[in-house]
Amino acid sequence: MTDFSERLAFLAATDGLKHVTRANRIVDGSRQENVAEHTWHVTLMTLLFADAAPQGTNLDHVRALLIAHDLVEIHAGDTVIWDNVSAADVAAREAAAARQLFRLLPEPQRGEFTALAEEFAAQCTIEARFARALDALHPMVMSWGPDGIGHPRLDLKPAVVLARKHRDIGAFPQLWEIAEWLVASAVERNLMPADDEA
Amino acid sequence: MTDFSERLAFLAATDGLKHVTRANRIVDGSRQENVAEHTWHVTLMTLLFADAAPQGTNLDHVRALLIAHDLVEIHAGDTVIWDNVSAADVAAREAAAARQLFRLLPEPQRGEFTALAEEFAAQCTIEARFARALDALHPMVMSWGPDGIGHPRLDLKPAVVLARKHRDIGAFPQLWEIAEWLVASAVERNLMPADDEA
Repeated sequence: MTDFSERLAFLAATDGLKHVTRANRIVDGSRQENVAEHTWHVTLMTLLFADAAPQGTNLDHVRALLIAHDLVEIHAGDTVIWDNVSAADVAAREAAAARQLFRLLPEPQRGEFTALAEEFAAQCTIEARFARALDALHPMVMSWGPDGIGHPRLDLKPAVVLARKHRDIGAFPQLWEIAEWLVASAVERNLMPADDEA
Repeated sequence: MTDFSERLAFLAATDGLKHVTRANRIVDGSRQENVAEHTWHVTLMTLLFADAAPQGTNLDHVRALLIAHDLVEIHAGDTVIWDNVSAADVAAREAAAARQLFRLLPEPQRGEFTALAEEFAAQCTIEARFARALDALHPMVMSWGPDGIGHPRLDLKPAVVLARKHRDIGAFPQLWEIAEWLVASAVERNLMPADDEA
């Protein structure tokens, strides 16, 4: 293992993810969540909701995709889906971030991390789609699940949230059932305005 | 999926790990690391140092063990190995914490998480031992690796650190080479006193 110094430098660089804040707060509302914490929590969800994955889904690969994908946010920052962002812009920014970050690595790790990030971005495998679905469900649990105190964006309305989230979660019926329940429960608990409120 | 409310309550409870601080700081030294961040970073190390695992090690299982094991620290807190702690006391506290936390889960998840935590504690499989080795190496990288600014415990000396760490890491030659390099480099950079300093 002659090349461990490069990997240690990479590991130190990825520490930056503990400084990248997300739009949602942690459950008790005391502060925003950072991306390192988010990735950890979504990998935990792969164990907790394994039965929501279609038969034959490689959950190990889902975890690897989640871990590699979020790393690019060290340079690209977290994309807030409620802002008006162009998907093409985000994809370009994250691809550039991946090149910048993974350049620190020797082979074969550089190729492995690059392939994982590209697979997540392309969304062409069941593992990439299931990873994105869990990734999209997680902040909903943080904001509107048990003990959640709501999302900082107070203008979010059920129809808007569900329309946007359906793109990422809708293909997985059990996860989608949870997403719908979370939104209904948020309205009931006055954490989200109803669609017909001013 | 009739039982998802229990799993959501569990997910909310595990958010507490974002509040449990560890003895080491994050790399830039600005604050202590929390356990959620630590677990994330150690699962990343399973991808980065996969070639340091003995042939046949199931790295997916290593990741699952790491995720489940650290959860018990929500109730048991983080054990600082540099304090004089009794291993039996820690084991008893963590086993009680596991029962308290995993009780929130329905079956089969309760059984699965309990089995993972017990396997990590027993250290009888190669996966449990490799998981513990990475877990022990990670704070050394945070404190004494690239960009690290040292460990808050300024009285730690090379011989003491290496003797304690050898128990967890020594069986994995490539990881042990990194551990020894980190300690030597810390002394060279004056982040750690030499053994013969007063």
